[in-house]
Amino acid sequence: MTSQPTPPPALRLNADMGESFGPWVMGCDRDVMPHVDLANVACGFHASDPDTMRQTVRLAREHGVTVGAHPAYPDLVGFGRRSMACTPAEIKNLVLYQVGALAGVCRAEGMTLGYVKPHGALYNDMMQDSAKLEAVMRALAAYDAALPLMAMATRETAPVQRLAERHGVSVWFEAFADRAYDGEGRLLSRREPGAVHRDVDQIVEQARRIARGEPLTASDGRDLRLNADTLCVHGDNPESIAAIKAIREVVQAQGAKP
Amino acid sequence: MTSQPTPPPALRLNADMGESFGPWVMGCDRDVMPHVDLANVACGFHASDPDTMRQTVRLAREHGVTVGAHPAYPDLVGFGRRSMACTPAEIKNLVLYQVGALAGVCRAEGMTLGYVKPHGALYNDMMQDSAKLEAVMRALAAYDAALPLMAMATRETAPVQRLAERHGVSVWFEAFADRAYDGEGRLLSRREPGAVHRDVDQIVEQARRIARGEPLTASDGRDLRLNADTLCVHGDNPESIAAIKAIREVVQAQGAKP
Amino acid sequence: MTSQPTPPPALRLNADMGESFGPWVMGCDRDVMPHVDLANVACGFHASDPDTMRQTVRLAREHGVTVGAHPAYPDLVGFGRRSMACTPAEIKNLVLYQVGALAGVCRAEGMTLGYVKPHGALYNDMMQDSAKLEAVMRALAAYDAALPLMAMATRETAPVQRLAERHGVSVWFEAFADRAYDGEGRLLSRREPGAVHRDVDQIVEQARRIARGEPLTASDGRDLRLNADTLCVHGDNPESIAAIKAIREVVQAQGAKP
Amino acid sequence: MTSQPTPPPALRLNADMGESFGPWVMGCDRDVMPHVDLANVACGFHASDPDTMRQTVRLAREHGVTVGAHPAYPDLVGFGRRSMACTPAEIKNLVLYQVGALAGVCRAEGMTLGYVKPHGALYNDMMQDSAKLEAVMRALAAYDAALPLMAMATRETAPVQRLAERHGVSVWFEAFADRAYDGEGRLLSRREPGAVHRDVDQIVEQARRIARGEPLTASDGRDLRLNADTLCVHGDNPESIAAIKAIREVVQAQGAKP
Repeated sequence: MTSQPTPPPALRLNADMGESFGPWVMGCDRDVMPHVDLANVACGFHASDPDTMRQTVRLAREHGVTVGAHPAYPDLVGFGRRSMACTPAEIKNLVLYQVGALAGVCRAEGMTLGYVKPHGALYNDMMQDSAKLEAVMRALAAYDAALPLMAMATRETAPVQRLAERHGVSVWFEAFADRAYDGEGRLLSRREPGAVHRDVDQIVEQARRIARGEPLTASDGRDLRLNADTLCVHGDNPESIAAIKAIREVVQAQGAKP
Repeated sequence: MTSQPTPPPALRLNADMGESFGPWVMGCDRDVMPHVDLANVACGFHASDPDTMRQTVRLAREHGVTVGAHPAYPDLVGFGRRSMACTPAEIKNLVLYQVGALAGVCRAEGMTLGYVKPHGALYNDMMQDSAKLEAVMRALAAYDAALPLMAMATRETAPVQRLAERHGVSVWFEAFADRAYDGEGRLLSRREPGAVHRDVDQIVEQARRIARGEPLTASDGRDLRLNADTLCVHGDNPESIAAIKAIREVVQAQGAKP
Repeated sequence: MTSQPTPPPALRLNADMGESFGPWVMGCDRDVMPHVDLANVACGFHASDPDTMRQTVRLAREHGVTVGAHPAYPDLVGFGRRSMACTPAEIKNLVLYQVGALAGVCRAEGMTLGYVKPHGALYNDMMQDSAKLEAVMRALAAYDAALPLMAMATRETAPVQRLAERHGVSVWFEAFADRAYDGEGRLLSRREPGAVHRDVDQIVEQARRIARGEPLTASDGRDLRLNADTLCVHGDNPESIAAIKAIREVVQAQGAKP
Repeated sequence: MTSQPTPPPALRLNADMGESFGPWVMGCDRDVMPHVDLANVACGFHASDPDTMRQTVRLAREHGVTVGAHPAYPDLVGFGRRSMACTPAEIKNLVLYQVGALAGVCRAEGMTLGYVKPHGALYNDMMQDSAKLEAVMRALAAYDAALPLMAMATRETAPVQRLAERHGVSVWFEAFADRAYDGEGRLLSRREPGAVHRDVDQIVEQARRIARGEPLTASDGRDLRLNADTLCVHGDNPESIAAIKAIREVVQAQGAKP
């Protein structure tokens, strides 16, 4: 085979998993797992516990799904959604702890970790504060530089990319099919009208465009091309699980990122 | 190959380390670390936190001390000293989680874990309930069968040894220099008179006997020979740190277990 | 004043409430609250959080339901169902803390606490260990001796009654409509066949008998008369909520304990 | 006695107390308690536990010291020093919970709560964000409007005073003897040179001025008169305890605020 380029990998689907805690159930992991490629598994700081992590990793293994660590601020009652004034050193160490804990559970199931995606407020904070982003990157570089970091695909991914290169780590950029974007490629605040797409056709069409590398229309009317490696999906109820299946079909039909 | 046996390794000293938590300091880790061989590092369930673990592992590395995981029941306020009715499955998973978490922190310091020693009530419970002991062994076998389990040296270590062999793991037996033993080789309850040795000479003499493989005198008057790989020491104040140094000298003078 | 006795109060229904935690929902509090008299509200150690407690107390107020504190061992991930080796002094103080915390939330809703019912393993432990039962009674006596303690109605309630009198507190005895009893009036272990009644008619009939003061048939065939002040009900799904309504009807039809 | 005004109360001393947690000791409560008027007792969210709270309240009672609740964000490992993005509703409920919990412990010692002083990051946040300050005031108004809120004395206390009046609560303003102030009467950041006074004479002189209502010199050279009801002191070591005694003498010598 000569001049034909290897096709880039198809856009993979990632979903938050293992968010139950003790006796409390959250999510429909058994229904979602068969339809995604990447499982972001909570590590006990915002959700999950050793037993839940074990069951989630096993479920991922049964479906051939890659397990990623989903570390968070230590805020169980707030589900890791409240920003906390942690220092970069604290962030580095709490990521190491959580990544290691999930890796330990993975070993018992013959699995290895595939990537790291910070959760909730930690994710938002690292996208807005490069000191926090670097803290996460330093944790990955120290733990295993081959583990990609999942971060948000915006209009300009070059700054994040450069920071990653400086720390010797790689990044998987993720996009959202069910959210509107502003002109900079940031998610429109949920407080804005039209921030969240409810219509399945609209969601699937946005997924199709992202998968094909076609531009979306940002909230300021500009074209927005997101260079995404993965698409984040949510499966909390039958409708959203149906949407995941539809997204998966349209993404696979594109075969690969152009 | 001649008749000369390889000398067994000298009796190593182990101590609990990294038992600070957040702003609360416990122990004199900086004073103790230079004088021990094995650091049992708390993993966040009964003590420690990601920052404390990081500092403790770094301190161990600086002194060439082997790091062991010191997993516990999830009881921070009770310091893991209160027995909890956890199932074997829960124990297996909480050991995996804690061992993994510390291993993650170790990687950031270029260290690897050397062994696992359950803490407090979990340690006591596993010595009295073989289902719990097997749960811990299963965790080790699943995580890394090359990681030895530290368990208590009693008169009859064969049952624990057999269980370990069945699960494909190895055991390091530990003895105590500052505690009296009953006839079965179990620690005399602290409620009994004479259960804890206060006299440094007595402690050092007990260490010397254990290091040479000489018998102690149990509380029922019988000889008690403890086949120990390691000796547990505590350094909470200047006196106990002086005792550690004296123990170390006498142990090293024996060169090796006979 | 004549010879006519005041009718004793009808058998009241109690149910565990406020067992959600942070983002995790448990129970159908809105569906159950209208049909019970007493709400056992979790206090943050095994379930619930300040926001959930606030909402639960408000819901109780809207339905004229009496709020009771439901204190537990500090074991969130285990939902307070695992026995912990807490000392009596620890139990006394953790009951005071939790009772006070819920009372604080109640004040903000213009409510006052009506009683205290220990939860899960703490409840079981106090029924089997009089030192733990006394620890709970001491907490109540110290906090407010007018707050009744809810405890289990067994064949012989006199020992608990005597202990309560010694500590100057009162007891509300509770029975179960959906569980089989052994000859001593203890709940048959869930591991035994027939321990849990699934048939609604059987549950309602047991409630009717308890409400009328008629004997049940214990697992050893003996008659068992339970002198109960309240009946514990559970409403986790539509069937169990229907059972609660049926129980309530049959209990109210008896008017009062004979 | 005719036209002579009643002397205002002397400047009272307050100190953080009960900051131990489980096996970890913090502070020198036994040494400090005899020399202060007001004990800010941690309530379990940033420090303390039911047993520690009980002992601390008992110690306060023995010394005739008024107990105040010291509620905090739920951040034990961070000691409540890290700002958390809690909503006003969450703040109101977590204050109610913690105030109630300590009140419950107080009842067992025959004590009642005397005031409420938010801790650490919650204190700082409420001084900078009136929505958070109002959330705390709403909690007090709902719990017991007679409980004063302790807040920081700055150049202009009128805005806080007005907010308190609107919510029907009262405020005790506190000043610091060992910290430099900026022109607005806010504490100079610890990062600034001279932010913390180390010299005991300087500390005692600042206490004397505040007690007499004399102006301090702010970092911008302006006079700064702090209208304080109480002075915050810290006793972590023998030097600081000596300073507390010296402060107490000079404050009592002024007799009362002029």
